[in-house]
Amino acid sequence: MKPYAFGIDLGGTTVKCGFFKNDGSLIEKWEIPTIKDNGGVQILPDIAAAIKGKLSERNVSPEDVEGVGIGVPGPVLANGVVNGCVNLGWGVFNVAEELSGLLGGIPVVAANDANVAALGEQWKGGGEGHQNVVMVTLGTGVGGGIIVGGRILAGGHGAAGEIGHIQMRKDETAVCGCGKKGCLEQYASATGIVRMAHLALKEERKLPSLLDGKEITSKEIFDAAKAGDDAALGLVDTLGEMLGTALAHITAVVDPDVIVIGGGVSKAGQILIDAITKHYRTAAFHACRDTEFKLAVLGNDAGMYGAVRTVLNR
Amino acid sequence: MKPYAFGIDLGGTTVKCGFFKNDGSLIEKWEIPTIKDNGGVQILPDIAAAIKGKLSERNVSPEDVEGVGIGVPGPVLANGVVNGCVNLGWGVFNVAEELSGLLGGIPVVAANDANVAALGEQWKGGGEGHQNVVMVTLGTGVGGGIIVGGRILAGGHGAAGEIGHIQMRKDETAVCGCGKKGCLEQYASATGIVRMAHLALKEERKLPSLLDGKEITSKEIFDAAKAGDDAALGLVDTLGEMLGTALAHITAVVDPDVIVIGGGVSKAGQILIDAITKHYRTAAFHACRDTEFKLAVLGNDAGMYGAVRTVLNR
Repeated sequence: MKPYAFGIDLGGTTVKCGFFKNDGSLIEKWEIPTIKDNGGVQILPDIAAAIKGKLSERNVSPEDVEGVGIGVPGPVLANGVVNGCVNLGWGVFNVAEELSGLLGGIPVVAANDANVAALGEQWKGGGEGHQNVVMVTLGTGVGGGIIVGGRILAGGHGAAGEIGHIQMRKDETAVCGCGKKGCLEQYASATGIVRMAHLALKEERKLPSLLDGKEITSKEIFDAAKAGDDAALGLVDTLGEMLGTALAHITAVVDPDVIVIGGGVSKAGQILIDAITKHYRTAAFHACRDTEFKLAVLGNDAGMYGAVRTVLNR
Repeated sequence: MKPYAFGIDLGGTTVKCGFFKNDGSLIEKWEIPTIKDNGGVQILPDIAAAIKGKLSERNVSPEDVEGVGIGVPGPVLANGVVNGCVNLGWGVFNVAEELSGLLGGIPVVAANDANVAALGEQWKGGGEGHQNVVMVTLGTGVGGGIIVGGRILAGGHGAAGEIGHIQMRKDETAVCGCGKKGCLEQYASATGIVRMAHLALKEERKLPSLLDGKEITSKEIFDAAKAGDDAALGLVDTLGEMLGTALAHITAVVDPDVIVIGGGVSKAGQILIDAITKHYRTAAFHACRDTEFKLAVLGNDAGMYGAVRTVLNR
């Protein structure tokens, strides 16, 4: 194997770049802005320039680069074709081939951003030491990544791990960003728990007492719950019921060794894990009932680590 | 690769044995009884004797056998350890190692029976030509198998594909064989639809008119539905809603290229596929909404084909 590799995590605002040794140790990380003008036509040339600049700065020959892994915020097929990225203005094209061409033929592997984050956590984070990992990212939405035998499960349409869109309620009237109603992320994301708090305020005319007069955020709700506020505890329990039940569905399908919980909401810590596992243990198939839950540890670097892993473990 | 291989499908009543060329063509198939006395201690020696007898009968040297694949009715880890088979009286031990020892070292691969059936259908059945397949077996219960990249997804506890135990209802009072309440197989199996018919009779005091006076079976219900009976159509629709919704959950996790429906209930044919897809298309994530449904084609031979595939594609 060649001595160096790059892991790139392409986000809607910034591109996180990592320069690695082939043993997975990070040499340097830096960021460049994501310029989304004109259908995002400049994004890949900017990334190629960043990589070539780093090689030049460090006097490393492109011949000494094993490859570049890149995580992309949209569905990506196993062959590198991105199936549209609304956030970037991208349509359907082969990201891996195009970036490789801009890099003079350095091999490129592309995958979905939630999936590379899961691979990063499996490799060097909360799932370290396990080959089969389900990762759930609780942020604005609910993302997911399925790692089987140490590799990303991409799916036939690049949609494996889209667990935020498991339909948890048939009677929901609010519409999810995906167009359906009753999706997991309408309840179990930062946005979801705030939405439920507003519903509690509006429909039941009561709001967690500790939240009175404050802008409601996911963090405020968890803080109130930790302080013992009943209404906030109820909201956290509902999130736990939705997510715990969905994870019981998920483990009946892929039966991971471990479940890793990450994303901004996971900063709530043990109270979140407790709320999820309480409902998970009830709903799960007996062989999976004791599956371990871990908090993610790599934070915003998970995608960069997972991206480089895709080229170091082809 | 050596010229021959065996595929063994170990069931609770009979063992289906297949002798194959290494290109996957079947030379001969036969059955032996499953003797479950004394904790099933005789089962593997009987299978070993059947294999050695066939080799002797055909003047084939054990040296010319690539391996033996065996499907087992219980959870099996990727390393061949069976995690207890209640039906056979088996506890926890390494089936693959033990059978290999009885065969003088011929390599053995063991996997769960529903999983090898799924692999058989992916290889030479309803999923042929696709690498990523979800198979659902609708029989007495609801079994499942997940094929990713042409290989069985076994799971960390041998429980991947246990989709019959996805909890579809929180308000169910009847208990599933697994000890939980509200599992998919309580609604979507042959037993499940008959159970729902009895509930309709008891609770609503009305029974599908065409069923009056007959013993209720899954086949009778589907036949009545095909003849236009409203109550039977309602029962089929409920089965379709439960299974279609569960399959939408499943595709949001593993996103297969195709979904194969098999087992005795699948003999109902297109009316079953129509009932499932009607609800599936509503509940599925948009990228998976048009995932194709196929009927299984190998019938009782699926396990034997899938079992031999595990040794021909290691």
